[in-house]
Amino acid sequence: MPIEIVSPLVDDGRYPVKISITRPLIVRARIILPCQGTVWPQLRIKTIHDDFKCIIPMVHSPTGEWSCQQTLNTLGCYTYSIQIIVDNEVNEQSREIPFWIERERTTFGNWYERFPRSCSDQFGKHSTFKDFKNELKRIAELGFDVIYIPPIHPIGTTNRKGKNGNASALPFEPGSPWAIGSSEGGHKTIAAEYGSLEDFRDVIEYSQTLGIEICLDIALHCSPDHPYIQNHPEWFIRDKCGELLSVKDGSVEYADIVPFNFDCTDEQGLWNELKSIFNFWIKQGVILFRIDNPHTKPLRFWEWLIRELKADHPEIILLSEALTQPKTMHDLSKIGMSQSYDYFQWKVTKQEIVSYYSNIYSEEIDTYFRPVLWTNTPQNLPLYLQGKNMAAFTIRLILAGTLGSNYGIYGPAFEFCQNTPLKPGFTEYDNSEQFEIPCWQGLKKYDISDWVKKLNKIRKENDSFHNNISLRFHPTDNDKVIAFSKYASNPPNYLITIISLDPENRQTGSVYFQSKNSPIQTMSRFIVYDLLYEKDYAWNNCRNYFELSPDRYLAHILKVNLPNASA
Amino acid sequence: MPIEIVSPLVDDGRYPVKISITRPLIVRARIILPCQGTVWPQLRIKTIHDDFKCIIPMVHSPTGEWSCQQTLNTLGCYTYSIQIIVDNEVNEQSREIPFWIERERTTFGNWYERFPRSCSDQFGKHSTFKDFKNELKRIAELGFDVIYIPPIHPIGTTNRKGKNGNASALPFEPGSPWAIGSSEGGHKTIAAEYGSLEDFRDVIEYSQTLGIEICLDIALHCSPDHPYIQNHPEWFIRDKCGELLSVKDGSVEYADIVPFNFDCTDEQGLWNELKSIFNFWIKQGVILFRIDNPHTKPLRFWEWLIRELKADHPEIILLSEALTQPKTMHDLSKIGMSQSYDYFQWKVTKQEIVSYYSNIYSEEIDTYFRPVLWTNTPQNLPLYLQGKNMAAFTIRLILAGTLGSNYGIYGPAFEFCQNTPLKPGFTEYDNSEQFEIPCWQGLKKYDISDWVKKLNKIRKENDSFHNNISLRFHPTDNDKVIAFSKYASNPPNYLITIISLDPENRQTGSVYFQSKNSPIQTMSRFIVYDLLYEKDYAWNNCRNYFELSPDRYLAHILKVNLPNASA
Repeated sequence: MPIEIVSPLVDDGRYPVKISITRPLIVRARIILPCQGTVWPQLRIKTIHDDFKCIIPMVHSPTGEWSCQQTLNTLGCYTYSIQIIVDNEVNEQSREIPFWIERERTTFGNWYERFPRSCSDQFGKHSTFKDFKNELKRIAELGFDVIYIPPIHPIGTTNRKGKNGNASALPFEPGSPWAIGSSEGGHKTIAAEYGSLEDFRDVIEYSQTLGIEICLDIALHCSPDHPYIQNHPEWFIRDKCGELLSVKDGSVEYADIVPFNFDCTDEQGLWNELKSIFNFWIKQGVILFRIDNPHTKPLRFWEWLIRELKADHPEIILLSEALTQPKTMHDLSKIGMSQSYDYFQWKVTKQEIVSYYSNIYSEEIDTYFRPVLWTNTPQNLPLYLQGKNMAAFTIRLILAGTLGSNYGIYGPAFEFCQNTPLKPGFTEYDNSEQFEIPCWQGLKKYDISDWVKKLNKIRKENDSFHNNISLRFHPTDNDKVIAFSKYASNPPNYLITIISLDPENRQTGSVYFQSKNSPIQTMSRFIVYDLLYEKDYAWNNCRNYFELSPDRYLAHILKVNLPNASA
Repeated sequence: MPIEIVSPLVDDGRYPVKISITRPLIVRARIILPCQGTVWPQLRIKTIHDDFKCIIPMVHSPTGEWSCQQTLNTLGCYTYSIQIIVDNEVNEQSREIPFWIERERTTFGNWYERFPRSCSDQFGKHSTFKDFKNELKRIAELGFDVIYIPPIHPIGTTNRKGKNGNASALPFEPGSPWAIGSSEGGHKTIAAEYGSLEDFRDVIEYSQTLGIEICLDIALHCSPDHPYIQNHPEWFIRDKCGELLSVKDGSVEYADIVPFNFDCTDEQGLWNELKSIFNFWIKQGVILFRIDNPHTKPLRFWEWLIRELKADHPEIILLSEALTQPKTMHDLSKIGMSQSYDYFQWKVTKQEIVSYYSNIYSEEIDTYFRPVLWTNTPQNLPLYLQGKNMAAFTIRLILAGTLGSNYGIYGPAFEFCQNTPLKPGFTEYDNSEQFEIPCWQGLKKYDISDWVKKLNKIRKENDSFHNNISLRFHPTDNDKVIAFSKYASNPPNYLITIISLDPENRQTGSVYFQSKNSPIQTMSRFIVYDLLYEKDYAWNNCRNYFELSPDRYLAHILKVNLPNASA
């Protein structure tokens, strides 16, 4: 076959390429054309249902490859193939390579995790969806796009966990929201403390007026009190004594939840019921789902489920919480998860950050893996932040929001700078919100909300931050300071970010530019505007001095004044 | 199918996994076993001819995956599959995943490129294979494993290039050895200046007594005087005026060579003839081939050729000179090239080196891509070395030889520190050996042969340098100094390399250790032995001071004294 080195494709076409609807499909290939007749190569796009969509002629580039591009205006699953036409007939056709056109939100977004039950002004008082609406307003004003909420279903009482994950709960303790299901109902039921299903729909409608979206948590396991356990004993595993097996992740056992048996005799019944959970919430207006621990369920289940859901709802977004080994994490994205948690929380030094993001922002991985850079989660207070000042929190905030086109914080714990771990050397929060209902107003250590607001605004206004693939690290002569740039064309937008990784001391040095193919290569001198501190500097394309310190400049986000850029 | 997340595999099994014969095939998978009957998973290995080879039971690990390993003692092409056995019958079987067992030389080797025609003691005097034998002795004593020689065939006279690539040659100028073919013969003929085919076989036999191997250059194109052009006009492309098309690579045109038309009407005849070139040299005792510009020929040709050759000669090694865009470079390795040139020559700063090698030394890429880190080639004198002192050459030597399990130098230009480019800002050598016959003894700027010898010895004696996948970079607080470690078990061998990238000035600072899973994590203090300067130091597993300068210590290769390691 004279059609070779085709891109984009994932694992030779086994998995779909993912493309945001705002960006074109750009196909490249090396094609050897027959020597006789009227000959040209063309790209043929079809929908997954085999409906012909369009044909685009390919053009020859000076580097010897053929290419063409096409923007698709409808979300959905497609395939492309390359055809060689000789005298108006198809002479050769490549295999059909699958690709998905997805919402722009899959590639760019500001995420915020919030427990809706702790929005009242009193410790231990479970808030309602009405209280939560006020809090949504505050979060929207901070500039977030998606509010991800942990499960909102009835919580089991059997083996309920108490404060700080104690093996048994006191009577007034609320339990972990991930221990889903009680006699009141399971994955399709709203816990009575929040209000009614109507109140939930009201939250969804209200969030739309604020320009934000609600992301629901789907955790496919059950509390021992879940109605499924009575109604479908065949979906669960019992040991020889007839006891339900509880969930294990590695060596950790979770006594308050039991796993489904995905390979049970009633596989079809179980899988269809789990699918119906998604459809139930889609019907209430939810299209974003955060998938709890997907790596502990079979890949083939997710592959089936995502194709089933996308057939009717190509707009849905699934965020994979796969904090596991890299291969499994990547495989989950290959089979169709829209986005994924990544290792940002554990990448702290300059070397760790440069190595990790140089690797996963490659063209190959970018075609299927879209990381969301979380600064923290209810289950993880990174060591770097423990006992630290607000500068440390601000540094990690700016790093996540400038390195990642998708980033997120778990708040208010993050912007209020909660920095106390359960035990020294451990990464659980002390008095974790997972097991109790705090009153956040009383827990402000510091408040970096203004930084959050500023960063989110900068992210929205600058297209460079809407992609990952343009990231380039630039050398600095100080290992405590990291510098990198991101770029977007049309309109041109070039941002240089310089961040001190040291929250305690002043750090000085120089940043060097060497990249040949950057927009500044022909500009020996130029003006940069610091979007964080709103100040101009005169820079050059070789070496520039910086001085960063916790009490003055923590970081610079410098917008380069490009010749053709609009203001 | 309840068998998931299988590794190793390349592009979901489309291309073969490559494994050195000294290492085991280690298969991992997530397997969900049926609940009834006597059940176990096993690995089944077959040869490519469908002959059953062996079955190995898989074992369950604490992290929940199944795995097993098997060393294969015969070079060749195999497949593996995972079977689930229920009550002694095969209940499920995964797809068959191809893998190749190859020579250890594919994963570890010291390479040296040498023009055999310039081994005499007189400028312009073409040396014979007899002269070359003396030179082979010197190169073997430097500790090289493979001597790669540019083409040794008759050189065309039409459009022959002169000194520094001049468009026309003077009568006494020898021309580029890559302009293959004259009335004397082509790709299967030895140029008369070297001697006879018998003399060549004598070189091969002599190299075996020295413990080294000769690698031949296969450049699949022809000088306009090649006999193929008369005898097989159908294999070439002519323009409308009947003129032969010459080779173009991007915008550069090579008037002294013409390309084959791989898609000509006599495709089968051409391909078989090209295959016969390899078989001819294999018959003379050659098993290593350096493939000139493979990216300008169809991938499908290479895929066919390599499978044809390996069927009879699983011991052959093909080194792909694919200095082109990364995707094509990697695709050539996926379809079967044993090794590949990489971008080492263009990776100069700490950031560039850390980014590039963190990326290509991933477990995924390591299963098919084996870079040879060349410091220079006859066509490229890196900017970093131009006009520089011997420290600059030594730095690049040590970097290549410690970062890469395969590395190479083009000498004597390299160890004699040739540092003059054709023109400022260009990377061609002045008076390039490609177009003339120098007398190397008169061209020594400096001589770093002792460094080469020492490095090659260290590489051979330390297993850590025989793999790439164990590489970890360690932070330093000086951006001009790079630090990394490599590890091998059985017997345990742990090496820390620290290199200054600055050939002019003293550089001081500290290197930090943080890696949790390293052999030194439990050793708060330990002794390191500097293999370059033969000296002991007391180190700790946190922070260690270094002081590097061109006149004292350029680099350290520190062997950690591990508790269980033999001396």
